[in-house]
Amino acid sequence: MAKPKKQPRPKAVTPKGFRDYFGEEVTQRTEMLRKIAGVYHRYGFDALESSAVETVEALGKFLPDVDRPNEGVFAWQEVDENDKGDWMALRYDLTAPLARVYAQHRNDLPTPYRRYAMGPVWRNEKPGPGRYRQFYQCDADTVGTASMAADAEICAMLSDTLETVGIPRGDYLVRVNNRKVLNGILEGLTADNDKARSLPTSFPEMLDTKVTDLEFIDPDAVLRTIDKFDKVGAGGVLELLTTGRKDQSGAFIDGVGLSEEDASRVVRFMQSKGKDNRETLSNLKSLMGEESLAAHKEHGVYNAGLEGIEELEAIANLLEAQGYGPDRIVIDPSVVRGLGYYTGPVYEAELTFEIFDEKGRKRQFGSVAGGGRYDDLVKRFTGQEVPATGISIGVDRLLAALREKGRIAAQATGPVVVTVMDRDRMADYQAMVAELRNAGIRAEVYLGNPKNFGNQLKYADKRNSPIAVIEGGDEKDKGIVQIKDLILGAKIAESATLEEWKERPSQFEVPRGDLVAKVREILDNQD
Amino acid sequence: MAKPKKQPRPKAVTPKGFRDYFGEEVTQRTEMLRKIAGVYHRYGFDALESSAVETVEALGKFLPDVDRPNEGVFAWQEVDENDKGDWMALRYDLTAPLARVYAQHRNDLPTPYRRYAMGPVWRNEKPGPGRYRQFYQCDADTVGTASMAADAEICAMLSDTLETVGIPRGDYLVRVNNRKVLNGILEGLTADNDKARSLPTSFPEMLDTKVTDLEFIDPDAVLRTIDKFDKVGAGGVLELLTTGRKDQSGAFIDGVGLSEEDASRVVRFMQSKGKDNRETLSNLKSLMGEESLAAHKEHGVYNAGLEGIEELEAIANLLEAQGYGPDRIVIDPSVVRGLGYYTGPVYEAELTFEIFDEKGRKRQFGSVAGGGRYDDLVKRFTGQEVPATGISIGVDRLLAALREKGRIAAQATGPVVVTVMDRDRMADYQAMVAELRNAGIRAEVYLGNPKNFGNQLKYADKRNSPIAVIEGGDEKDKGIVQIKDLILGAKIAESATLEEWKERPSQFEVPRGDLVAKVREILDNQD
Repeated sequence: MAKPKKQPRPKAVTPKGFRDYFGEEVTQRTEMLRKIAGVYHRYGFDALESSAVETVEALGKFLPDVDRPNEGVFAWQEVDENDKGDWMALRYDLTAPLARVYAQHRNDLPTPYRRYAMGPVWRNEKPGPGRYRQFYQCDADTVGTASMAADAEICAMLSDTLETVGIPRGDYLVRVNNRKVLNGILEGLTADNDKARSLPTSFPEMLDTKVTDLEFIDPDAVLRTIDKFDKVGAGGVLELLTTGRKDQSGAFIDGVGLSEEDASRVVRFMQSKGKDNRETLSNLKSLMGEESLAAHKEHGVYNAGLEGIEELEAIANLLEAQGYGPDRIVIDPSVVRGLGYYTGPVYEAELTFEIFDEKGRKRQFGSVAGGGRYDDLVKRFTGQEVPATGISIGVDRLLAALREKGRIAAQATGPVVVTVMDRDRMADYQAMVAELRNAGIRAEVYLGNPKNFGNQLKYADKRNSPIAVIEGGDEKDKGIVQIKDLILGAKIAESATLEEWKERPSQFEVPRGDLVAKVREILDNQD
Repeated sequence: MAKPKKQPRPKAVTPKGFRDYFGEEVTQRTEMLRKIAGVYHRYGFDALESSAVETVEALGKFLPDVDRPNEGVFAWQEVDENDKGDWMALRYDLTAPLARVYAQHRNDLPTPYRRYAMGPVWRNEKPGPGRYRQFYQCDADTVGTASMAADAEICAMLSDTLETVGIPRGDYLVRVNNRKVLNGILEGLTADNDKARSLPTSFPEMLDTKVTDLEFIDPDAVLRTIDKFDKVGAGGVLELLTTGRKDQSGAFIDGVGLSEEDASRVVRFMQSKGKDNRETLSNLKSLMGEESLAAHKEHGVYNAGLEGIEELEAIANLLEAQGYGPDRIVIDPSVVRGLGYYTGPVYEAELTFEIFDEKGRKRQFGSVAGGGRYDDLVKRFTGQEVPATGISIGVDRLLAALREKGRIAAQATGPVVVTVMDRDRMADYQAMVAELRNAGIRAEVYLGNPKNFGNQLKYADKRNSPIAVIEGGDEKDKGIVQIKDLILGAKIAESATLEEWKERPSQFEVPRGDLVAKVREILDNQD
């Protein structure tokens, strides 16, 4: 490496892919997270704040070589007495640290362990528009129980959370699916190729075959394909699952190689949502394939699909008992996103109201949270399998949704600004703001150079200040203050006629003793 | 570097020097920071959350060489298209990022810019007991004004903050000093050595001499010495400032080399706190030295000490006007800590109540916040001098103080636990917790294996649960539930006689419909 060059001045820039958050951007997020934490707390979840730094080993990545830090994470090597120590990295999510913490403290933690975590995570990725290398996650997980009651609870909590932060009922839907059901469908598939034809098809042979050994069909290819449902529709998915399809540009996309019949079963699976949960579950059952259902019934052969359906049924019953109807939480087999990662139930919270996208087209706001069951969490540390289930809320997306719905102001009102007319009477002005603050009103004295009064009003404008207070020598002598309604003033300046201006003055002269009352009155009228 | 060895299992350990925070440790800190933010907001301060990552260049450290990351910070080199990019680092405080942010966004930010910031910072230091490499800071600064009103405001805000989080008036004191006053004293010093004797002593010559050119006395040595005041007392400091002193072990510590007279002036400076601010200021003035005061008066020679005294006077007047008396904020020249770093007023908030230290000795709780004016903040980025002043609250120490004062519980009560007597009736139990939660009561169903009821009660104990709810088949048939007051139960088990046990049952049988009301009643009695 070259010797550092002498630089007279460092550049004042946020590192590439990072950003700073100002004012309301910070406080609104903090407030939203506080409300979410309140719901989680009521559900018996405990806060956990793990260190931002983990050993690379614990994060489950391969050790990076010395010249190229671990891709995906920000990593560095510790310096110890032997000069080189462990590789460390910033956490890239809140789940890997949970696994480490649970494995480390499992004897001290309750089982099951319900925990929530909120905080920044870091990704060493190429930044893009709206894509940052540091962002917030907000997770809740239950570790140590395989009970579907844990999954139902997470869904109920997610529903409560959305309503608590300000998404009204009817504007969101928590949709539940189960990875095992799709597994069941995939197990019943026969690929339209030679390998598939060599599979045992009669029942006695099947008993000796692990039906999940489906190397001949790539389940991920099926997952990737059905994930395109929204884009290419049922017909497109059918083509892609079988022989392939020409896309819009004319390029040909190879098919996955399923038979027409199997492909249509996959599509029917995705479309099997009925008028209520009962009908959906019955639709799913009828998709499982008579042969494998019979094998299960008569010979007890494990059937992933059936187990998945039973799990969905258990969740639906538990939610019904707690009063969470399908207007809030519903079984929907079309939920696919991230399915590959999970081992059981998966959930997704979607906001169903429409917004205009950057091209002016209407579309649903879409997903703000998702999760599911993943049962291999702690195994890599301890060797023991520990079942777990949880959700992650997209903090920035949910905040954006609340702004979209007008539940939080895009720009909040600034403080009342007490201007400085007489530099020597700073104590008087400080006494005014002290009074205002003691009445719970956000207020500040102008602390810049007071010579140019115009600059003070420009400052108030920049602060988005609702009110300016003025007390010059004349006012002081008369025992009064001038109170300027800056919001009304701006409105009048924009549109009012002279008549209106006269009728609705935006500046008021009040006795000094009435300062707080008058400011309060104006603020109340502005709301 | 050696190739990574195959490891069957990663170790589940927090990286050395880091720690995890559980439950109340997290929520109590969050709640305290929320209260602090409320006060800062009312004072017109805006939140700022800068990225945790900064370029090493912006942090103002020298580029590390490739093998040894920058000492003091956690740093790594970016990988860009040329393979090697900028060095990045985790921020080590919240002030350096403020400087970068202000320099970068100064045209968009109001001037003056009042901002607060709260969050973790990272230090690549050798960890020790109670010393972590990641910890919280909580700062408030005003950038862009040299007005003493900004300093007074910070002191008032600090006082309000302490009372708001739960430190009662009388249990804390914000003490204010000024670096310039000590500078003034130092300027008047004549070291008891040859160099000092060669200094001009008559006035015309002094005009041509920069009086701050005091290489012959090391001001830092004076600072370090007076910082030992608490340990060695006035006599010890006198010895150390002059010819030296034998410490307890018998070792001789060299003196700084001041004359007896000058040393006693320094000690008098530290002890010049009078019965009120007015007397303190007058004591300070009399210390300045007639000669330099005369030079200032008659010839306008800059006098740092006098300027410092005037600044303290301005702060005292402003605070008095706002009603902050010396029971809350007081001028105290014995405030030394960190003095070297600052350029003007310095403040320190001390908690004055007594605690027992780890050796069982009584001592004052001590400092929980400190700060001051530092005017070189942004200069290294822009070349322009930008005055700034601010404070930093020791988040962990203030939390510890609140626990010490019993203002927050060391261990909070856990959730009500609804036990599972009948695995098939999970929906019933979930309905119970839903009712409890809807009434605002923290509650959860036992989600572990319900077979062993003893394990369920052990779980409730581990959760620090106040109440367990039990509904077996018999209860269900009779339409009742059993409600167990676990806190009373534990008390009785510990100390009660059989008679008392009979008189005060800790388990209640109530109609199912009275579940919420009875739980509420027991919780209210437990408080």
